[in-house]
Amino acid sequence: MSSENTFLSRLNAVAADTEALLERLMESTPLDGERDRPARLLAAVRYASLGGGKRFRPFLVVESAALFGVDRAQALMTGAALECVHCYSLVHDDLPAMDNDDLRRGRPTAHKAFDDATAILAGDSLLTYAFDLLARPDTHPKAEVRIKLVLALARASGLGGMVGGQILDLAAEGRFNDVPKPKSLTEVETLQAMKTGALIRFGALAGAILGQADDKRLRALDRYGAAVGQAFQIADDLLDIEGDAATVGKQTGKDAAAGKATIVGVLGIPQSKQRLAALVEEASSALSVFGARADVLKAAARFVAERET
Amino acid sequence: MSSENTFLSRLNAVAADTEALLERLMESTPLDGERDRPARLLAAVRYASLGGGKRFRPFLVVESAALFGVDRAQALMTGAALECVHCYSLVHDDLPAMDNDDLRRGRPTAHKAFDDATAILAGDSLLTYAFDLLARPDTHPKAEVRIKLVLALARASGLGGMVGGQILDLAAEGRFNDVPKPKSLTEVETLQAMKTGALIRFGALAGAILGQADDKRLRALDRYGAAVGQAFQIADDLLDIEGDAATVGKQTGKDAAAGKATIVGVLGIPQSKQRLAALVEEASSALSVFGARADVLKAAARFVAERET
Repeated sequence: MSSENTFLSRLNAVAADTEALLERLMESTPLDGERDRPARLLAAVRYASLGGGKRFRPFLVVESAALFGVDRAQALMTGAALECVHCYSLVHDDLPAMDNDDLRRGRPTAHKAFDDATAILAGDSLLTYAFDLLARPDTHPKAEVRIKLVLALARASGLGGMVGGQILDLAAEGRFNDVPKPKSLTEVETLQAMKTGALIRFGALAGAILGQADDKRLRALDRYGAAVGQAFQIADDLLDIEGDAATVGKQTGKDAAAGKATIVGVLGIPQSKQRLAALVEEASSALSVFGARADVLKAAARFVAERET
Repeated sequence: MSSENTFLSRLNAVAADTEALLERLMESTPLDGERDRPARLLAAVRYASLGGGKRFRPFLVVESAALFGVDRAQALMTGAALECVHCYSLVHDDLPAMDNDDLRRGRPTAHKAFDDATAILAGDSLLTYAFDLLARPDTHPKAEVRIKLVLALARASGLGGMVGGQILDLAAEGRFNDVPKPKSLTEVETLQAMKTGALIRFGALAGAILGQADDKRLRALDRYGAAVGQAFQIADDLLDIEGDAATVGKQTGKDAAAGKATIVGVLGIPQSKQRLAALVEEASSALSVFGARADVLKAAARFVAERET
């Protein structure tokens, strides 16, 4: 089997396992310390987190954890937590006050399927639930490992990470009079490293944390994650320009219309494609310490760069 | 000094310490794993979390932790985390899509002072930051204690806790066709135990977790927190009816206008006041195991029932 096929079958396996796990976790029985899980809110949480997505972030967790022989069920728990943060960010990002999107993964966005208030609260629930999952012994028997995951995910997701990137993204549309638009390559790179990069980077890093990796291997996966995160966003921006809505499953051409800051906007299409290729190289070379065992992660970097949806 | 005066001076001391701590934590220097903290978002986070509030929840953490001789600086970190969750919930609750409030603590609400998108993201940042704070060694040297705090706070705040209570509260306004209004005493109690009670209860419980309390003392503080949480909400609902906006610092009479479900609405004013007195008794008797050392917490329960703002 080619490494490309191996990659796709492993990506699909993680997606199926993540879906099954989230399905089990998002049920109505209250846990210790909970009261009811109100039906409408639970339905919105399920709508926003089940039945879609490539589950690429959980894949990064599972495959990087596998380099250290981490129990797959534990890695899937961390992957599910990461996916909860990713899904919450999409729900809030799609709100009328934010990007005002009607379509996501080929379906109505959460606030269209429910209402704005329910979508806000479903996002809040998913973010909170991510930390609930990380705190459970199922995620890792050692409290020290779990608390490291909590800290790393909070940093990746918060004010100096993903949420910070969201506000820079709105600033790039010229939304705020008091915030200059990020325009230079460095500014746009920072924006994207925060908005999209931070969670992808956490995915690779989480595997190293779960595996209690030494510094060298931890830094290797961190470097890999950073390169893949950048590649992911450039590919996404290229898709927004070159893809069509039916294939991509969401509205395309919106970034340019909204005046969003993108690497493609700064560098142009040909140079962006060169940069994408260089990032795939960087991602691969970061993993050299792991030898052939990291082939599936290297294939993942290529997939990210070449994907059409 | 009477226990009432002792209580007030200790409440003010915790408020000042919490304010100083949050001020220090909400600065612009990025921490390990963070990029920039964008200025506008940081300003909104500071606006929503600094310069106001009685800091009653941090007080509960600090004073319940003090029963076990926990280091005050550690308890303040947990108190600050809890306050971040409380402040985020107010920001999201005030949004136009939710309660649509213009005034909070005598100042414009966050979305009025900034804009809806910034307020949504500031709330998200504060919620995320709470878990960042709990995960730090400053909060407690033992990872096992910190991860217990993370789990308990996630449960208190999430789908089966505070956020779940928010959606029940919106349902009580008749917002959703598919969700019946909570009307019975039990339904309204559940709503309030989730919406307001869960975070207050966590405050008392967190002290026991930090103090590595035995089961008996942990249950005692949990019982105390549950009673104080109920008393707090009934007092709040009475204030909404009997208080005036200038003293309370937010619009009054809104609950009735919005058709909110309250204990006062179900039981009437005289019976609600009786219930409030019984809850103060319950809170005090729960703490009997601690003897006179818990006097300040008992005074806190009385204060909650009798407060005028």
